Amino acid sequence: MTDIRLYLSEMKRTVEGWLRQCLPEPEAFSMRLFDAMQYSLFSGGKRLRPILLVSTANLFSGGDGALVRDFACAVECIHTYSLIHDDLPAMDNDDLRRGRPTCHIEFSENLAILAGDALLTLAFELMSRPSAPERRQRQLEALNEVAVKAGCLGMVGGQCADVLASGGDGGEQLVRFIHARKTGALISASIAAGAILAGASDSEVESLCNFGDKIGLAFQITDDLLEIDGDTKTLGKSVGSDVKNNKITYPAVVGIDRARSEAQKTVAESLGFLERFGERAAVLNGIAHFFIDRVN
Amino acid sequence: MTDIRLYLSEMKRTVEGWLRQCLPEPEAFSMRLFDAMQYSLFSGGKRLRPILLVSTANLFSGGDGALVRDFACAVECIHTYSLIHDDLPAMDNDDLRRGRPTCHIEFSENLAILAGDALLTLAFELMSRPSAPERRQRQLEALNEVAVKAGCLGMVGGQCADVLASGGDGGEQLVRFIHARKTGALISASIAAGAILAGASDSEVESLCNFGDKIGLAFQITDDLLEIDGDTKTLGKSVGSDVKNNKITYPAVVGIDRARSEAQKTVAESLGFLERFGERAAVLNGIAHFFIDRVN
Repeated sequence: MTDIRLYLSEMKRTVEGWLRQCLPEPEAFSMRLFDAMQYSLFSGGKRLRPILLVSTANLFSGGDGALVRDFACAVECIHTYSLIHDDLPAMDNDDLRRGRPTCHIEFSENLAILAGDALLTLAFELMSRPSAPERRQRQLEALNEVAVKAGCLGMVGGQCADVLASGGDGGEQLVRFIHARKTGALISASIAAGAILAGASDSEVESLCNFGDKIGLAFQITDDLLEIDGDTKTLGKSVGSDVKNNKITYPAVVGIDRARSEAQKTVAESLGFLERFGERAAVLNGIAHFFIDRVN
Repeated sequence: MTDIRLYLSEMKRTVEGWLRQCLPEPEAFSMRLFDAMQYSLFSGGKRLRPILLVSTANLFSGGDGALVRDFACAVECIHTYSLIHDDLPAMDNDDLRRGRPTCHIEFSENLAILAGDALLTLAFELMSRPSAPERRQRQLEALNEVAVKAGCLGMVGGQCADVLASGGDGGEQLVRFIHARKTGALISASIAAGAILAGASDSEVESLCNFGDKIGLAFQITDDLLEIDGDTKTLGKSVGSDVKNNKITYPAVVGIDRARSEAQKTVAESLGFLERFGERAAVLNGIAHFFIDRVN
C-alpha cells in the first residue's frame, strides 16, 4: 500500500508536468479563458485517468512516449471539463470543488461554460497530433474510443440520466446505467486508449476494458459511500452535495451495507480480468485495491 | 445566382440526409439528450460549413466519400453546439434561433449544456472513424485542423473575447480578432479539412484557408449589417439581439458605409485566392458572391 501511494504520488507529479506543457500560449483578448482553463486543470485532482492510461500502456512494449503523454493529458482535460460543466448552476450548482471555489464562482458562469468547451476541444487537438505512419491506425482507434465513451452514449449520456433522475425514483438499473456512463466510461476509455496505443491485441483490450468498467463502478460506489460517511477533506467536495441535489446514489438505492459489499465484490471481479497479465499488472492491481480501501 | 441558389438548396438537402444518419440510437434513460441534440441539429440552418467542406473537396480528385461525409457532418455538429451554448442565459440569453425557441427554452438549461457537449464530442467521433491506411495521415491532419480552429485559439477564444467585450469599448482590432475566430475559424477549418482530405498540396490548402478567412470575415460583417437592416425572417434570429446584448460589431466600430465597403473588398480579396484553381472553383466563387449579395 505504501508502494502504490508512492507510485500514485510520483505519477501525479509526472502527469502534472505534462499538463503544464499542454495549454497553448494565451492570446491577449481571451486571456481570461486561458486563466479559467488553467485554474480548473490545476485544482488538485488525483489524475486517476491519465495514471491509469499510462500504467496500462506500460503493460506492453509498443507505446510511443509522446502519444501516450498526449492522450494522458487529453483524458484529464476531458475529466476537468466534465467537472466544470457538472458544477454549473443549471446542473449540480456546486460552489466548492476540491476545497476551492468552482470555476463559475471564480470566473463567472459564461467563462466556465467556455473553459469546459475549450478543454474538451483541446483534448482532441492533443490526441490528433502528428505521429509516425505505423502509429496512426492505433492513434485513430484510441481517439475514437475516447470520443465514443465521452459522448452521448457514454459520459454525457450518464450525466444527462443523472440530472433527469434527480428527485426521481431511480432503482438499481438506473443507478447502474448512470455510474457505468458518468464515471465508468471515461475510466474505461483511458485504460482502453493506453492499451490500444501500446499495441495490445483486441482480446487484451477487451479484458482491460472489462477491468476498467469494474473499477469505474467500484470507484463510484466508494465515492457515494464517502459522500455519506466522509468529511470534506477526504472527498474534496462539499459533503452532502448529493443529498442536497437529491442525487440517485448506489447506497440510497440498495442500502449502505449492500453498497459496501458490492464495491468489494466489484473490485474482486475486476482483478480477475488482470490475471492473464500476471506480475506485469501489479500496478493496476494496486490501484484497484487502493480505491476500494478508501472505505474500509 | 439562380444556379448557386439551386446548388446550395440541393447540397443542403444532401447534407441533411447525412446528418440524419449520424446521430446514434438513443438510450432510454437519456432519451431527452438525443431529443435536444436532434432538435438543434435540425432547426433549419443553411449548412454553410459542410457545403463549403464538400465543395472544396470536389476541387480535387482524391476525396474518400465516406470520410468527406463524416467530416461534413462533424463541422455542422460543432457549429450547432456553438449556437446552443452561445444562446444560453449566461451567454447571449437568446430565446429565439431561426424562428424557433432555443434549445434551453425548449428543453431546459441543463439539457442544452449537455446537448452542446454531446454534439461537440460526436463531431470527433465522426472524424475518427476507421479509414483506409493511405487516408489516415490526412484524416488526422484534417481532424487536428478542425480541433485547433474550434478551440481556445479559434472559435471558443473568439466567443470568449466577444462575451468579455460586451458593453466594452472595442476598437477595430478587437472586432477583427473576434470575427476571425468566432465565425472565421470554423469556416476556414471546414474549407481546409475538405482540401486536406481530398489530397490538396500544402500550398493549395494555404490558398484555400486564406479564401476561407476572407469569406468568414465577409460573412460576419454581412451578418452584422443584416442585424441592423434586416427583419427577423431574413436573418433567422431576433433582430436587435446584438444591440440588446451590447455586442461589439463591425458596423458599430467603423460605421455602416465602411462596413459595407469592407465586406465587398473582403469578398474581392477572397476571390483572388481561388484564381489558381480556374474554372474548377466556380462553385466556391458563387458561394462567396451569394453571401455578400445578401446586403446589396
